[in-house]
Formats: sequence, structure tokens, C-alpha cells
Amino acid sequence: MSNKKVPESTISRLFLYLREITELAKINIKTISSSELGDRTNLGDAQVRKDLGYFGQFGVTGAGYSIADLKKSLEKILGKDKKWNVALIGTGHLGTALLAYSGFGRHELDIVAAFDADAKKIGKKFGDITVRPISELEKLTKEKNITLSIIAVPAAEAQGVAETIIKAGIECILNFAPVSLNVPEGVKVRNVDFSRELEILSYFAANKGNGRETLK
Amino acid sequence: MSNKKVPESTISRLFLYLREITELAKINIKTISSSELGDRTNLGDAQVRKDLGYFGQFGVTGAGYSIADLKKSLEKILGKDKKWNVALIGTGHLGTALLAYSGFGRHELDIVAAFDADAKKIGKKFGDITVRPISELEKLTKEKNITLSIIAVPAAEAQGVAETIIKAGIECILNFAPVSLNVPEGVKVRNVDFSRELEILSYFAANKGNGRETLK
Repeated sequence: MSNKKVPESTISRLFLYLREITELAKINIKTISSSELGDRTNLGDAQVRKDLGYFGQFGVTGAGYSIADLKKSLEKILGKDKKWNVALIGTGHLGTALLAYSGFGRHELDIVAAFDADAKKIGKKFGDITVRPISELEKLTKEKNITLSIIAVPAAEAQGVAETIIKAGIECILNFAPVSLNVPEGVKVRNVDFSRELEILSYFAANKGNGRETLK
Repeated sequence: MSNKKVPESTISRLFLYLREITELAKINIKTISSSELGDRTNLGDAQVRKDLGYFGQFGVTGAGYSIADLKKSLEKILGKDKKWNVALIGTGHLGTALLAYSGFGRHELDIVAAFDADAKKIGKKFGDITVRPISELEKLTKEKNITLSIIAVPAAEAQGVAETIIKAGIECILNFAPVSLNVPEGVKVRNVDFSRELEILSYFAANKGNGRETLK
């Protein structure tokens, strides 16, 4: 395996490749060339080869990649070969929406614990999950083998919550608070900024019909 | 202005450039070269020139771009020179969280109306906004000059809501339902898939410490 730093855009594309070849595996296709995979994902074969190249050789033959091998390798690289336990911090409207959200299960992601700082919310039940005080985060993280976290608290509280998360030993954070977190090196943060998505829509609204439509 | 199709990634970068030069304008810097802008955004000058090239000439001189001119042009291109009115459809937990979210205001985006199909929610107030029946969407769209919409309803209802939105004359949709919408050509949809963000975190969790950290 190569040790090169991998761009985040490559990782997003690996998920696309994996989705594509998972569909092909279902209909019993055995091999695929980089140009076929490039066509199916609209990314081109050079991009496919470059992205896969970060992770070493994948047994390319004259007939292309073995779909079974490539699928297994990508699942391992992307952490899709096991289930990941997630802690949710903040059970206000957004947190509650995330608990009810049906999209996580599709990706081997399982919210196994929920926390809040508000005494009135402690003990509330959402399905199997009972809201706990944030002081129990460290204990639950060990008990439930939690490796991912979601911050769904107001902006003013997010930095403090991030520090509690990191102290509990969790190093991956999905942050919904509209604020930038200061975290030590090695801790990974993804920010979901709703307004950034709307910004792109406002570009579309501003440019409708002037021919500057966008490509994917 | 050029008529070339513009990749979405370019538009995202234009917002970055605009943020950067807005900061520079505040401290009274007058010009910037593409290589300085490339350095400040970690994107490199070739990328900067390519991205700006989609939109024609920006008065480059020996000293670089005029910050005042570039800022004005980018604001116009990105639709940041005016306010955009947004309709929210679905006032469950996620919709309520979005109504309370403080991030929109920063971007000239204003949720001016909220709708629900549930009779029990009609008439509920959130600040200035009263929840209306979705049957009034078309009327309100005209009255309030709404051009953007947010779908925050369950997956099973999202397609029907999208059709109502399009019928009301709104052609830009930010979709939070974990389902892919079928829309006519010309209608722009952005899907926010929380689980896709978590997928990237699971990659980080799976690869911690093996040297395959990612670049931005």
C-alpha cells in the first residue's frame, strides 16, 4: 500500500466506484476496465487510474480489474467492511432529526448513544437510545466502542463539546454547528454547512437561462 | 461573458476566492495576483486563472486583479449582490432546526415562508414565520418573490413535494430527504446527504495512523 497523502476528492470518488461495482457484482459481472469504470462514473479512465493508484496495485489484467477483488479492497480502504459506532451530542431539533434519519443505516453507521447538557433532556428515549449527560461520554465511548461523533449543539457550545469528545478518545467529528472548531492535529473534522449548499443554489438562481449551467 | 458550462467545483472555489478578497478589501488591499490568490487558498495560480477564465476577463494588469472589481464581479456571478427568498417545506425536527439555524443570514439567504402538509402544524409560529398549508405555496411564491426552496420532509413525500415546488415556479431545490428526485431539465437540485459526510469520517477512522491522511 502506498503512503501518499490522499485528497478528500479521491475518497469521495472511491465511494462512487464502490457503489458502481457493487451494482455490477449484483448482476454477476466479473471484471471491469478503468475506461468502463470511468465511463460509468463520468470521470474518465485517467481519473480512475489516478485515484486507485494511491492505494497500490489492484491486480489489473488484460480484462481489467477483478470486480470481487476491487470491491473487497475498496470496502477495506473505506472502512465499509465493519460497522462504526457513532455518538450524537445535542438532542435539540437537529439532533432529533438525525436520530430519526433513515440514511445512516445504509452505510454501516450506527448512532449508539446520545448526549445532552440540558438536564431536562436526560433520560428521554429515542427508540433504543436514552439521552445521557455529556459527563458520561468518556465512559460510554469505551463501553460501546464509539469512534465517530456528531456535534449538533448551538455554535457557542460547539468548541467545548469538541474538547469533551476529544478527551473521551474520539478523533472523528461531523460538525453541524456553524462555527469552525480548533482541534489538535490528528483529529478529523467534517463541517456540514447548510448555507454553503444554498449558496450554490443561489448561483443557479442568479444564472438561470444565461447558458452558464454547470456540469457535475 | 463566456458561455462555457461551469463545473460545480469551480463555483465552490469562486466562493472561496470571494471570501478571501473580501477579507483583503477590509484591510484596504487594492490588488492581488493570481499566484497570491492561489497561495492564500492553497489552490495554485493555474487553478485560479482557469476558474476565473470561465467568466471572461477581469482586468488583469501587471499588478494583478483589482480587488474592488473582482469582488463586484464575483458577487454578481454568484448571486451575492442581492437577497434570495427561500421557502421551507416540512416543519418537523429538521425543518425546525433549519428555521433556527443562524448560518443562512450570513449569505443573503432568507427563509420567508414555511409549509407543512400536517394540519396540526399549520398556524404554528417560528419568529416572524407562520406555517402555511402546502396548497398556498404557489400563491406565497408569487407574493414573496421566492426563488429557492428547501425540502425537509420524509423520503416518501419528497417527490410529491418537489413537484408542487416546481409547479409553483421555483426551480432551485435543496433536498434533505435521503432520496433522489426526478425533476425536469432546468430545475436544479442539491442533495444534502448526511451519511455521505459520515462515510468520509469512517474512512478517516479506518485509516488512522497508517499514513494515508488526506489533503484538503
